[in-house]
Amino acid sequence: MAGSSFGRIFRITTWGESHGPALGCVIDGCPAGVELSEKDIQPFLDRRKPGNAAVATARKESDTAEILSGVFEGKTTGTPISVIIRNSDQHSNDYDNLKDLYRPGHADMTYDAKYGFRDHRGGGRSSGRETAARVIAGSIAIKVLKELGITVEAYTRAIGPVEADLSEYSRSAVLANATAMPDINANARALEYIADMKNKCDSCGGVMECMIKGVPAGVGDPVFDKLDALLAQAVMSIGAVKAVEIGDGCKAAASVGSRNNDQFKAGSKGRISKRSNHAGGILGGISDSSDIIVRASVKPTPSISRPQKTVSNLGENTEIEIHGRHDPVIVPRAVVVLESMCAVTILDSMLYGMGSRIDNLISIYNK
Amino acid sequence: MAGSSFGRIFRITTWGESHGPALGCVIDGCPAGVELSEKDIQPFLDRRKPGNAAVATARKESDTAEILSGVFEGKTTGTPISVIIRNSDQHSNDYDNLKDLYRPGHADMTYDAKYGFRDHRGGGRSSGRETAARVIAGSIAIKVLKELGITVEAYTRAIGPVEADLSEYSRSAVLANATAMPDINANARALEYIADMKNKCDSCGGVMECMIKGVPAGVGDPVFDKLDALLAQAVMSIGAVKAVEIGDGCKAAASVGSRNNDQFKAGSKGRISKRSNHAGGILGGISDSSDIIVRASVKPTPSISRPQKTVSNLGENTEIEIHGRHDPVIVPRAVVVLESMCAVTILDSMLYGMGSRIDNLISIYNK
Amino acid sequence: MAGSSFGRIFRITTWGESHGPALGCVIDGCPAGVELSEKDIQPFLDRRKPGNAAVATARKESDTAEILSGVFEGKTTGTPISVIIRNSDQHSNDYDNLKDLYRPGHADMTYDAKYGFRDHRGGGRSSGRETAARVIAGSIAIKVLKELGITVEAYTRAIGPVEADLSEYSRSAVLANATAMPDINANARALEYIADMKNKCDSCGGVMECMIKGVPAGVGDPVFDKLDALLAQAVMSIGAVKAVEIGDGCKAAASVGSRNNDQFKAGSKGRISKRSNHAGGILGGISDSSDIIVRASVKPTPSISRPQKTVSNLGENTEIEIHGRHDPVIVPRAVVVLESMCAVTILDSMLYGMGSRIDNLISIYNK
Amino acid sequence: MAGSSFGRIFRITTWGESHGPALGCVIDGCPAGVELSEKDIQPFLDRRKPGNAAVATARKESDTAEILSGVFEGKTTGTPISVIIRNSDQHSNDYDNLKDLYRPGHADMTYDAKYGFRDHRGGGRSSGRETAARVIAGSIAIKVLKELGITVEAYTRAIGPVEADLSEYSRSAVLANATAMPDINANARALEYIADMKNKCDSCGGVMECMIKGVPAGVGDPVFDKLDALLAQAVMSIGAVKAVEIGDGCKAAASVGSRNNDQFKAGSKGRISKRSNHAGGILGGISDSSDIIVRASVKPTPSISRPQKTVSNLGENTEIEIHGRHDPVIVPRAVVVLESMCAVTILDSMLYGMGSRIDNLISIYNK
Repeated sequence: MAGSSFGRIFRITTWGESHGPALGCVIDGCPAGVELSEKDIQPFLDRRKPGNAAVATARKESDTAEILSGVFEGKTTGTPISVIIRNSDQHSNDYDNLKDLYRPGHADMTYDAKYGFRDHRGGGRSSGRETAARVIAGSIAIKVLKELGITVEAYTRAIGPVEADLSEYSRSAVLANATAMPDINANARALEYIADMKNKCDSCGGVMECMIKGVPAGVGDPVFDKLDALLAQAVMSIGAVKAVEIGDGCKAAASVGSRNNDQFKAGSKGRISKRSNHAGGILGGISDSSDIIVRASVKPTPSISRPQKTVSNLGENTEIEIHGRHDPVIVPRAVVVLESMCAVTILDSMLYGMGSRIDNLISIYNK
Repeated sequence: MAGSSFGRIFRITTWGESHGPALGCVIDGCPAGVELSEKDIQPFLDRRKPGNAAVATARKESDTAEILSGVFEGKTTGTPISVIIRNSDQHSNDYDNLKDLYRPGHADMTYDAKYGFRDHRGGGRSSGRETAARVIAGSIAIKVLKELGITVEAYTRAIGPVEADLSEYSRSAVLANATAMPDINANARALEYIADMKNKCDSCGGVMECMIKGVPAGVGDPVFDKLDALLAQAVMSIGAVKAVEIGDGCKAAASVGSRNNDQFKAGSKGRISKRSNHAGGILGGISDSSDIIVRASVKPTPSISRPQKTVSNLGENTEIEIHGRHDPVIVPRAVVVLESMCAVTILDSMLYGMGSRIDNLISIYNK
Repeated sequence: MAGSSFGRIFRITTWGESHGPALGCVIDGCPAGVELSEKDIQPFLDRRKPGNAAVATARKESDTAEILSGVFEGKTTGTPISVIIRNSDQHSNDYDNLKDLYRPGHADMTYDAKYGFRDHRGGGRSSGRETAARVIAGSIAIKVLKELGITVEAYTRAIGPVEADLSEYSRSAVLANATAMPDINANARALEYIADMKNKCDSCGGVMECMIKGVPAGVGDPVFDKLDALLAQAVMSIGAVKAVEIGDGCKAAASVGSRNNDQFKAGSKGRISKRSNHAGGILGGISDSSDIIVRASVKPTPSISRPQKTVSNLGENTEIEIHGRHDPVIVPRAVVVLESMCAVTILDSMLYGMGSRIDNLISIYNK
Repeated sequence: MAGSSFGRIFRITTWGESHGPALGCVIDGCPAGVELSEKDIQPFLDRRKPGNAAVATARKESDTAEILSGVFEGKTTGTPISVIIRNSDQHSNDYDNLKDLYRPGHADMTYDAKYGFRDHRGGGRSSGRETAARVIAGSIAIKVLKELGITVEAYTRAIGPVEADLSEYSRSAVLANATAMPDINANARALEYIADMKNKCDSCGGVMECMIKGVPAGVGDPVFDKLDALLAQAVMSIGAVKAVEIGDGCKAAASVGSRNNDQFKAGSKGRISKRSNHAGGILGGISDSSDIIVRASVKPTPSISRPQKTVSNLGENTEIEIHGRHDPVIVPRAVVVLESMCAVTILDSMLYGMGSRIDNLISIYNK
């Protein structure tokens, strides 16, 4: 029931329904002394905003963040940071004809099964709008990680059958392309594919990936709170994600040890690196200082305007047609959510493991 | 640091190193009144035991479980169940020549980075032996779930390139085949492939899957403690797992909404079911009463006897050759670990969500 | 750091500083199906409001609660309930002359020691205003407990040396008296004592008590999450509380077993009760169906207008005089905070323990 | 249900029943690199052992600790430390005649109410024997705290009406006196009082106190995980404790602000101290660098050999006479348990708050 919090020290709590008056996030455990204002948050929310008519809903979500606590004279105080977004442009009536019907691929039926009752407007709590609150938390975590020299960057790897070419990865391309792909050609082909889906009253999915650079070796807590295990929870908890991979992920299953093992190499100042990175930056649940690679497969948007067989609240077979404003694919907007959840997880694990050695305790407390 | 516990109510805590005197598990939060003895646990430990020379290490792990608390007159009392396994057949000296070298694909380097110090014998805490403690917890969770009409069954789907045919799934075949595949032909081909790997001083990985039947709709806690999110953490925390999928998993990314959506169907007594199960039994993080399907990709065993480049404790480049007793593939033995982690997660979510409606509280407390 | 959440299932998270734009509470894990509106919350906030010039600050805190999520068509949905109070009537400048000085008895120095930085206005996060957020959560918990036939009532037992006579306890007297005492005579004497303190530029403390009726036997989780242990945390976390007692509390130390033991008595329908209630309704950390009695000792308000020796931010000895609006005693306003924390703790423990027997699980899931 | 764990990073999990084969503790999250062996634990267990016939039970508890994991080559590895004590000298049959009767003052009735079933032998899980596991954890926490220059010392303040004189506190007296009082005269009078109780087939309670020296300012997490709040939970969770006080505790309620406020004083190197310590070392839930003072009131031992009215399992009124080996007062043996719980709480809060400032993170991770 109380599943709306995540993190052991950097603990985020999200709240809000799709068509309620507001939504928000409380970020507790953020270290004090980090410069922070709404300007740090807004660009991340803007990346989540539907912008390109081709790929996203026409719903205009302004999503303006307001910080209500935890920041004083421009810096975090170490106390809970509460950030709120007022909802606007609500077409709640769009959902009135659906309120007694269970939309296939959505959580309408399961929420009723669990709670006996639900806010049906736009999916209520199960709506993708909840992820705006995650992006708030993520933008703050990314700001903190930056102070530690760590970057967190996500992008689209595939839309339906169209795969991006990562060989010429550029961050600006990711931010400029409507698909959040790093590759202009693939972006163009993906937009065509999406347009085709839209014409067919259908939808598609895709693959997104996050690359975290600069995490020192030694982050993560065996055996259940392994860094990859917590990343898996964090990422699988994003609506529509059906698979999470670390490094080579599924492909590792068909590899062989002599190829999959990343051999070690000594660098200057005793730094140890790996000669390859099939592991995706994590060994035994603990970061190994290579780039951390997290990948997520996203299912096609379940809201499609074709007629579908379904059941009513009363348990009668019927049909449903879903109209209104829906993304034919959510991957481009979900990329910043992936980035956010990865950042929150990494930061929390760094905070949590600070006392792994007695020497660390002594250095902090006996100064 | 304190990552050795999992679960919010049915909370398991594992402890023990590969070559220490013992290992074990404390299972807290188990409902009272369930019949339990060592006989319920042992068959699960035996499935994890290396049995078939072709696929597994020659290390003879007797793994005899002893219940030390939480059971009285043959029934659980609701208090912590402590179960211990004494280690035996330890060839700790096998590892003496490796103690200053970081084995590629293992956690030696990352443990040193985190803790500044490690028990090098057989991987210490990062050894696969830790999973014996998980199997203890899993066997108990499975016993409890059985009282609720729920079954949890895992099996091998693929070893390297050899895929099983699930069309004629039989539980007895899974338990009889050395590969834990449900398919005799694939089992034979996989054994050949494994033998080939062994001859080449190499190793391979594979895919395992778990099917949970009988979970009613309504289990799981939005938004971070979604049932699939917690399953992802639970399964990714198993050593060597590099990907976790729910239902169609990665394949969903290339599907389209009209095909991927599972349409609903009304049954007798108001029961609602789905006409397909691409979702793998979970919608919006909550069970939908279809079979829950969890899949994990396992990397090839990192211990191979070929020479590999590595680095020593002192930061010098060198080579390593790993001898001793190692599985050329761990999937067949890991299947029961997957089963265990799924069972623990499902039971914990069922316990955690009991009060999702005020009516449930009233029915329990106002009797 | 992330200490702003409390509860394992009914989990509350408070946020906000004394002089920030707003404060609030997120209540997660509330069962679905409970009627709730701002009207249920406001009376509790009003009890915390400074009302009587004799006992409380002249600061006019309107404290109007707004529910932003988790309630739909007048009922809780089971999703997080976010409630916000906008701050108003802020005299932040009152604190400007204090910003470099550590007020004795306040947390100014310790916040600086921990965070290196603080919002000095009115104590920031350490202000008593934070308790308004707890009262929001408490009012909701009390509403839920009412559905289970449980009542939670707190009152003032003593103000300085003036003790109330509980022999003629009446709830309406508690709510009518400015001191929240159940006794008109004591109320009058306490008001005189408070006036005297005010004249002397001094302050006083007192004792408050909470009585919870109707909790069935069997609530609480051994051995660290005992019901009394969690109540102790909950109550000691209220600012200015220096002692927590259960039942006879401190007096039990000087009693003898033959007197302190509550002997049992059989009632109709197999109900077992106790012939006395020295234990205060809890045995071995589990409720025994008698009234649960929790008592808290509250220190004198630290803000007094007399000159006091202190130290500045820069580590120099100096004097401080605190002017502005301060309660000469906070007990009357804290009574509803005690009530709130007790209610939250009891409800959380009831939710958490629902699956203590396998039969309970079967009754919920196999219906 | 899963209440047998305590701590957020330094997390301890106890298990075991009074008359089961063994009991133990798993200590997770202990920093790596601390020298540890059974020799560090045993003296603490010995202090808990019944030694003096006048004050304690004749049950001979050898309580020999065995470390099973988490220590390698004499040092902690950062992984879970499992410590076990085999039970011996069990007179389980002593309890056979009580198995259907609820002992007044004990948890027999409430365990049955919660779990529907219990191990009746010696109180099972609710027995004071469980505290041996806490002492194991405490002895390790105390060893770690010592590395940080922190000492934790508990002692008896009162037995029944006999109060100790703390003015000439000496640690060796505490350890030498059978009552764990620091005062020889009081010790003698208390022993007389206890002997008198024993002759009367009665029992008595008392007060114990813990003094923690050397904790730097800045430890504790507002607002629910305040250091005093967590200490309150930790100490109230010890069986038979009915009140917890910090600093002046209950007495603060009758004090006035001008006296109760501890004024500040500047020392060398910018160190700030308090001119008195009514607060008991904690302001706003955060340590202030003064001694931390925690006090607990302990009820009289409930097992007395006088006839008492009670009820049977079947709900029938009857009488009970409890024979066997019981302490007429448990305070002297509980002192080391208080010490243990305080140490565990302080260490956990120190670990948890290491990242309260961004500078701390930078100093640990960017070295």
